[in-house]
Amino acid sequence: MKKFINSVDTLLDESLLGFAKAHADIIQLNSQPRFVKRIKSTSPGKVALISGGGSGHEPLHTGFVGVGMLDAACPGQIFTSPSPDQMLAAAEAVENGSGVLFIVKNYAGDVMNFEMAAEMLDYPTATVLVSDDVSLPKNHSIGRRGVAGTLIVEKIVGAAAEQGASLADCKALGDKLNLVTASMGVALTSCTVPAIGKPTFEIADNEMEMGVGIHGERGRETLPLATATEIVEHIANIIDTELKPEKGQQALLLVNGFGGTPLLELHLIYDLAAQFWEKQGINICRSLVGNYVTSLDMAGCSITLCLLDDEILRLWDAPVHTAALRW
Amino acid sequence: MKKFINSVDTLLDESLLGFAKAHADIIQLNSQPRFVKRIKSTSPGKVALISGGGSGHEPLHTGFVGVGMLDAACPGQIFTSPSPDQMLAAAEAVENGSGVLFIVKNYAGDVMNFEMAAEMLDYPTATVLVSDDVSLPKNHSIGRRGVAGTLIVEKIVGAAAEQGASLADCKALGDKLNLVTASMGVALTSCTVPAIGKPTFEIADNEMEMGVGIHGERGRETLPLATATEIVEHIANIIDTELKPEKGQQALLLVNGFGGTPLLELHLIYDLAAQFWEKQGINICRSLVGNYVTSLDMAGCSITLCLLDDEILRLWDAPVHTAALRW
Repeated sequence: MKKFINSVDTLLDESLLGFAKAHADIIQLNSQPRFVKRIKSTSPGKVALISGGGSGHEPLHTGFVGVGMLDAACPGQIFTSPSPDQMLAAAEAVENGSGVLFIVKNYAGDVMNFEMAAEMLDYPTATVLVSDDVSLPKNHSIGRRGVAGTLIVEKIVGAAAEQGASLADCKALGDKLNLVTASMGVALTSCTVPAIGKPTFEIADNEMEMGVGIHGERGRETLPLATATEIVEHIANIIDTELKPEKGQQALLLVNGFGGTPLLELHLIYDLAAQFWEKQGINICRSLVGNYVTSLDMAGCSITLCLLDDEILRLWDAPVHTAALRW
Repeated sequence: MKKFINSVDTLLDESLLGFAKAHADIIQLNSQPRFVKRIKSTSPGKVALISGGGSGHEPLHTGFVGVGMLDAACPGQIFTSPSPDQMLAAAEAVENGSGVLFIVKNYAGDVMNFEMAAEMLDYPTATVLVSDDVSLPKNHSIGRRGVAGTLIVEKIVGAAAEQGASLADCKALGDKLNLVTASMGVALTSCTVPAIGKPTFEIADNEMEMGVGIHGERGRETLPLATATEIVEHIANIIDTELKPEKGQQALLLVNGFGGTPLLELHLIYDLAAQFWEKQGINICRSLVGNYVTSLDMAGCSITLCLLDDEILRLWDAPVHTAALRW
């Protein structure tokens, strides 16, 4: 295993110290228990948005803490759920009179721990479960996974909360977004979890893993490596069948890298995906391309389409000031 | 070779189309010859800043075109200098009455082609050569290479140009910045140039390449893989010996990923590098951590220190609106 670390045991804490130091104008780190919160005070009565999950997906979620997005994020160990004490401490630190909205990616551990925290809190709470990964069937036993669409939910609900939306409205908006957002990923390599020290799976030089999540696990199927056009058509067709956008529909297109894929390739994928939907008369009016919801050093990417109405578009465009998203 | 491409021959153009589509609010692509220019018109009399170089370093340079930074960028093929006709066409498109400043990384091909363009242009021109890579000796036969410090020069001179600095002042500022900026890189793997199809060099699992540039080439020396603390101390000592910052000196610390290294590790490197200089009484008052000057999919990073005075600090903080840097 080749990584820039001192030891597997201290990696997360050392990295969080660096993150906090590099972004001291935006966030503050609490070490025991671990959470990151924004330093700008929020208007009284603003709903507090908290997310979290295993580390290894940076900049998700810590990089999305700041004005216009999250109030706090709770990082677990790599690919491991944070614990309820982190969520409780974060909630105590940022609750501001109108309750707490948890934004949770749909994984059993995360769901359970956020549920426990919600039960233990004395504040009103609500939870938005994100399950945008359409590589799994809708009726999958534990439901679909939350992947890159999570950042869209965090950005848009974050803007609504900033503008004074109530806890119930934030929850309703998040649930609505989850229904109009679909993602699917493809990987060329697995990733190396530091505590394990070798790639989670082996894959041949002429193969790709289609329908992967963000934990370096195997995907829906192993396929022969194809051209970028074929890969994009495969994924875009599945997303399109799910969301069934109509001609003239406005949409946000996100091409997300998993960490090991150059921007050069992500932009090429973006062009092909935009062409796919433009040919069908979909109006790709907003875009995001980059490494936002990663899987350590995995080479691969995901495509996400989010259908926009005027309200969602306005909230997407609203100012945001975080380490990883800023406009 | 596992990459998201259709063919080696069309990769660059397809990628540029995607980049232009994803950032149509900031830049515009000219395809023949290839350059990217900002779409916001500039104040009459603003010096035009143009950079360029081989592709494969994204977001450098195209991602730094926009208000507060570059007026145009000329992308060559991967790791290959752009040609003078690109620079001439870019200059014709963005020159605005006060001449053209070329910001050029010190590589023989880039230097020669920008020189040819400067000779052929009817506008006043000046060139800032960036040579921040201290892994090569100062008296190296072709001079030191320009690496991650280039983005600092582009940002700060870009701000000065935006605020009305003359061509001579922009040139003097760029030259001054080059003297107070030092970088050095380390790689854990090489990268795979698409036209070659395999990693540029092989390196053992227990080795690292110290003092690398940004073209996947071998570095100053191959060393046994060390801890992050040891790696940072090795690099920071060389930078420190070069710049000799005094106690109380303000500085910008940039930890730049080469493309294949997760943010988790880059933040850890940032923490260690900041500690190194803080212990010596240096005031690390600005930071940047991320993949900004990359080498395709190379796993590795570089550390850059830039000494700041009040003017440089003010220019660093000035607004910037590009695809890759925005505040």
